[in-house]
Amino acid sequence: MITSPTLLVDEQKCKANIRRMAEKARRHDLEFRPHFKTHQSTDIGEWFRNEGVNSITVSSVKMANYFAESGWNDITIAFPINLREIEAINRLSNKVSLTILISDPEVCKALQNSIEHPIEAMIEIDTGSDRTGFTIDQKGDLNEVITGISKINNLQFKGFYSHPGHSYSARSKEEIREIHAEVLAKMSDLVAGLSMQRDAYTICIGDTPCSTVASTFKGIDQVSPGNLVFYDLMQAQIGSCTIDEIAVALACPIVAKYPSKNELVIHGGAVHLSKEKLKKESKEHFGYPVYLTGKGWEATNKNGFVKSLSQEHGIVTCTSEFMESVGIGELIGILPVHSCLTADLMSGYRVLEGRTLNHIRAPK
Amino acid sequence: MITSPTLLVDEQKCKANIRRMAEKARRHDLEFRPHFKTHQSTDIGEWFRNEGVNSITVSSVKMANYFAESGWNDITIAFPINLREIEAINRLSNKVSLTILISDPEVCKALQNSIEHPIEAMIEIDTGSDRTGFTIDQKGDLNEVITGISKINNLQFKGFYSHPGHSYSARSKEEIREIHAEVLAKMSDLVAGLSMQRDAYTICIGDTPCSTVASTFKGIDQVSPGNLVFYDLMQAQIGSCTIDEIAVALACPIVAKYPSKNELVIHGGAVHLSKEKLKKESKEHFGYPVYLTGKGWEATNKNGFVKSLSQEHGIVTCTSEFMESVGIGELIGILPVHSCLTADLMSGYRVLEGRTLNHIRAPK
Repeated sequence: MITSPTLLVDEQKCKANIRRMAEKARRHDLEFRPHFKTHQSTDIGEWFRNEGVNSITVSSVKMANYFAESGWNDITIAFPINLREIEAINRLSNKVSLTILISDPEVCKALQNSIEHPIEAMIEIDTGSDRTGFTIDQKGDLNEVITGISKINNLQFKGFYSHPGHSYSARSKEEIREIHAEVLAKMSDLVAGLSMQRDAYTICIGDTPCSTVASTFKGIDQVSPGNLVFYDLMQAQIGSCTIDEIAVALACPIVAKYPSKNELVIHGGAVHLSKEKLKKESKEHFGYPVYLTGKGWEATNKNGFVKSLSQEHGIVTCTSEFMESVGIGELIGILPVHSCLTADLMSGYRVLEGRTLNHIRAPK
Repeated sequence: MITSPTLLVDEQKCKANIRRMAEKARRHDLEFRPHFKTHQSTDIGEWFRNEGVNSITVSSVKMANYFAESGWNDITIAFPINLREIEAINRLSNKVSLTILISDPEVCKALQNSIEHPIEAMIEIDTGSDRTGFTIDQKGDLNEVITGISKINNLQFKGFYSHPGHSYSARSKEEIREIHAEVLAKMSDLVAGLSMQRDAYTICIGDTPCSTVASTFKGIDQVSPGNLVFYDLMQAQIGSCTIDEIAVALACPIVAKYPSKNELVIHGGAVHLSKEKLKKESKEHFGYPVYLTGKGWEATNKNGFVKSLSQEHGIVTCTSEFMESVGIGELIGILPVHSCLTADLMSGYRVLEGRTLNHIRAPK
């Protein structure tokens, strides 16, 4: 019996999400190099392997170690290389094929004599997300950076990586496609300024909205989306998925009912869902309540919304119909705003049939 | 060496925060029943024990079990009782003295024949936070609820509990004191309507702002603040503490520097700090960057702010002075917005001298 907040995974939906992207990548002759930061689970990793995936992306050395231990041997750490972790990187690159990210030319100096085993480096490009990497304005410097990388012992230049995180500001498939077109144009512009042959390096882009929605990937070799494994309400709002494709829901016990203010209180708070929120019709919310059925959950946004979260409490504003049909001591589902953060907090999964799936943070 | 995000605790500041509240409680003849949801650490729990604390508050059965295992035997679970956890509660109440919360009269029916060992129940009162509990308008019903509780086998009525969470909307000590005065007035109003003798029950209030700032606790028997163990930027903005009293900082490696936009990139993201944010002069932020010194950190809000958080990335907007004085591969500290959530995510601590402290979520 589920007694406290539990992250449910609909295995069928999840596997369908993985398969759809794997097939799309094959159709477009792209290497599918999924970002495993969303699920952080070697069990779920196997579902990707079954779709032919051999290479993965992670966002920390810790995650790279975790997946290396379960047999993944071609891993990109898509995070600006952390100089304090060189020793850990050297240990890992003795065992697996590792790709690191260079997001600032300054690190090249520090790497000069510190890499012990061959690893590959991608230069991070800021294609509009304004987070990390070289901007297209800096393309004149790139030949020099590539030369710098090539001079570093045991470091081989592999290509360019970009996470077009600004696609998260989109609110329709059309807006996503516009952003994607700009990203392709910027990458093409970058390529034009290089003195290397095009087949001598790889270009990878990494966001779920563009990877899911785009119908052309001209000039791109790899895609590394992560969130698509589960999707969430944020992706539904962006236009990347339907609510029905969301593959996780947090099962939460109802602990109090206040019909006079249309509010349910659930065990399910900020330490379960995260404080990531969305705005809908000027109202902020932290998720949508749904009925749990024997076979999963109802995929809808019609029952109400999670109005506020304390550390362990969730306050759900709901319709009177929903209020009347659920009782104290029963479970409801909450569709999460941001599944990456909810999964990280919950640190484990339960499939609908009751089996549990592991997570990097789960006690062994 | 610290290589990845690490939650530092300044043991002296933390112990001073605990001592100050313990002494205040003694001065006001209050039982100090601290909320351990903030630190969730049996190691830090001992620092309370050394100040004479014998009884504690937690927000889940899981937390109650964790602290019971390390010798705490008088525990309030300050969360509306979760009917799905009755078995776990029965196991625990066989070993320790347990107090549960009744926040909805409906649960009394379900509890009728399910409690196996004597436990105590407090009725939760909503003194203005509009989250959970009986409102003062419902005071007419309370005698009936008390009678209902008393009829339940093995359940003993203990008193009233309130978390005046609306104190978090205060922005000065004066505003906190006004809210506190209202809370005392509401509790006094409630007491006046009861048919029981005043010495037959206990009244407990639970928030950090009021407990820290108030100078009178007339009519109150217990206080159960939690956040005061560390404080944070939210409490500083509310008016509960100074920035110098904040006892935790997240040590984060710098992984990139973009002086042209005054931005540093750190390893330290939403999975470390949480997405709790604050608004200052219409700008939202997720924490303040500070210099780490051999003896802790500089307590200041003058260096800049954490502008945005991805899962693992933090983007820090900072002064040019700060930018110039820190390098890639060095560590800076981030003062957290909400220490309860940061501590939960980090699941462990490092004191300034290097020793580590445990956490309920830490691998054993």
